[in-house]
Amino acid sequence: MIDPWESTDFDYEKVIEQFGIKSFPDLIKELDNPHKLMRRGVIFGHRDFTNIIHAIKNKKRFTVLTGMMPSGNMHIGHKMIVDQIVWYQKYDANIRIPIADLEAYSARGISFEESKKLAIQEYITNYIALGVDFEKENVTTYLQSKESIVKDLAFILSKKVNFNEMKAIYGFGGSTNMAHMQAPLIQVSDILHTELNEFAGPKPVIVPVGVDQDPHIRLTRDLAYKFKSQYGFISPSSTYHRFMTGLNGGKMSSSKPKTAIFLSDSSEIAEQKVKTTKTGGRESLKEQKELGGDPNNCVIYELFLYHLIDSDDELNEIYINCKNGTCLCGYCKNKASELTVKFFEKFSEKREEASEIAKNVLNKD
Amino acid sequence: MIDPWESTDFDYEKVIEQFGIKSFPDLIKELDNPHKLMRRGVIFGHRDFTNIIHAIKNKKRFTVLTGMMPSGNMHIGHKMIVDQIVWYQKYDANIRIPIADLEAYSARGISFEESKKLAIQEYITNYIALGVDFEKENVTTYLQSKESIVKDLAFILSKKVNFNEMKAIYGFGGSTNMAHMQAPLIQVSDILHTELNEFAGPKPVIVPVGVDQDPHIRLTRDLAYKFKSQYGFISPSSTYHRFMTGLNGGKMSSSKPKTAIFLSDSSEIAEQKVKTTKTGGRESLKEQKELGGDPNNCVIYELFLYHLIDSDDELNEIYINCKNGTCLCGYCKNKASELTVKFFEKFSEKREEASEIAKNVLNKD
Repeated sequence: MIDPWESTDFDYEKVIEQFGIKSFPDLIKELDNPHKLMRRGVIFGHRDFTNIIHAIKNKKRFTVLTGMMPSGNMHIGHKMIVDQIVWYQKYDANIRIPIADLEAYSARGISFEESKKLAIQEYITNYIALGVDFEKENVTTYLQSKESIVKDLAFILSKKVNFNEMKAIYGFGGSTNMAHMQAPLIQVSDILHTELNEFAGPKPVIVPVGVDQDPHIRLTRDLAYKFKSQYGFISPSSTYHRFMTGLNGGKMSSSKPKTAIFLSDSSEIAEQKVKTTKTGGRESLKEQKELGGDPNNCVIYELFLYHLIDSDDELNEIYINCKNGTCLCGYCKNKASELTVKFFEKFSEKREEASEIAKNVLNKD
Repeated sequence: MIDPWESTDFDYEKVIEQFGIKSFPDLIKELDNPHKLMRRGVIFGHRDFTNIIHAIKNKKRFTVLTGMMPSGNMHIGHKMIVDQIVWYQKYDANIRIPIADLEAYSARGISFEESKKLAIQEYITNYIALGVDFEKENVTTYLQSKESIVKDLAFILSKKVNFNEMKAIYGFGGSTNMAHMQAPLIQVSDILHTELNEFAGPKPVIVPVGVDQDPHIRLTRDLAYKFKSQYGFISPSSTYHRFMTGLNGGKMSSSKPKTAIFLSDSSEIAEQKVKTTKTGGRESLKEQKELGGDPNNCVIYELFLYHLIDSDDELNEIYINCKNGTCLCGYCKNKASELTVKFFEKFSEKREEASEIAKNVLNKD
């Protein structure tokens, strides 16, 4: 069972097998200009992504739906979703971004006021700084607690799912609070309300998520099917990305500041974090020159792969030279530090500009 | 366990003992002008009704909250709640009447449109005809599905109750649908939202109900306590009335038309139903003259007690003369028929007038 509030480690192959997620690399050739996270296998799985390819190719309307839960600060792992939004923006998709304040309250006890503040000052600000253009008419965000159409649809949908099903999907039990039990249904509605007539009716929706969120996708697809005759829902599509490893080799987590580089970090702090990051180097220089390094178990390499290097050729060269022992950890750390400093110097400026724009995004109508 | 969606038969004494409901007759002497249902022990139990007596005596603000679930037609058993509303109206209470369309959907699959139509054409119309004055500023009604403040408070409250508690109170299990599981929390919020600042803050609330609804009251009082520090809630008070016996001696039920006299019945049909009603008469006239009748097991007597006879002296005389065998069933049936015809002739006129007013009640603001 995958628990979206707790899961940390994944066997990606097993998930593909067990839950019927399809391999993303198998269909990447059908995209003219795939995102680097797609090309590099970071996005490893999908459900019904062919619907989205079809929409892109035929210039049909589709929606990208991906929520932010305002709790803690955004780290570079969270950036992956935003990078994907920016990619979809090029195809003129409807981008709809729920702020999961109802979930933050039910799962973490965060008040609606806190959520709103955090969403504006941290999340929306970062999204803008990373390139999400809320000034476009088809890019919208909302607070779950304020969006009646979402809450109302959630209630309607919840008639066709029972406690046993929720238990099987989420592992809910006797001590689960009743708000927490409703939160997934709000998320289902976050996705499906974009297909209501008020939002121009049924159309493909893509939900790019980390694989820990697949329980929500399965529940959503199940309810889309059950309410198909009433609303004409097209089952939502999803993609699944791998998680970034934390700087110390474990999970990257907002609640463990030493494991993560935060988008709000200064370039100095980010640089320092990169310099102390775990690499795939060997015990000794001699050994590394003989055996080569292990880029598949190297957080620095991950930084290149996920974020810092755009050119596949350049990345590939590093990979090969690491494996054959000609490129050593010192070189890579320096390169990663330089690129990180460059990114964060520019990004902190962008954040400053973005923070002004962010203040009004929730007032847009 | 009392299941508010299923329970039919009650041992009233046992309920008082087991669930800590207090005896209503014990405090009736503190009321200057008790309603006949109070005087006659039909309202047999309460929780914290002393708060309401205090408010009445000191002319303090208090709220009467009682919902209508639009499913089927109203019968004379339902009239009891409305009679109580009319009584409280004299004390200038805030009367607030939720129309439980969310519950009707989750428990019975009735659409919001159907609920609204039924609420206007049947429930609100009858309430007006029975004397509820929606033109008064402090008499209001609303559809649950349209009342954001109620739905939002329900979500907030639901964080502090878990599945085990819901199971213990309502007997919910694996096959309970998730909307049904939320419905009681909406009802809790129906009651408690009247104490929010938007409704002039905490004050006593009285919820007059049939005893089958006590699970909701217990949950509400529990949550009022848990959120007291946040909202200052005063735990709601409640009164419990006995149920009318069905015309055939079983339960009076809207879904079994032969068991009930409906408020929409013509005087002819109502009369006919009264004439075929089960009485507390003996096997033979001889036996009845010797042993007397049994008014405690007589639906005709119940009609007098609950509805048809306002004078306690007159009612008492019938009771005594039945017990001592001087007043026979024929007399009572005739009397009940006459009073019923009289009531329904007048009432159908009132309903006609009321139906026009009812059309605009939900548009009042």
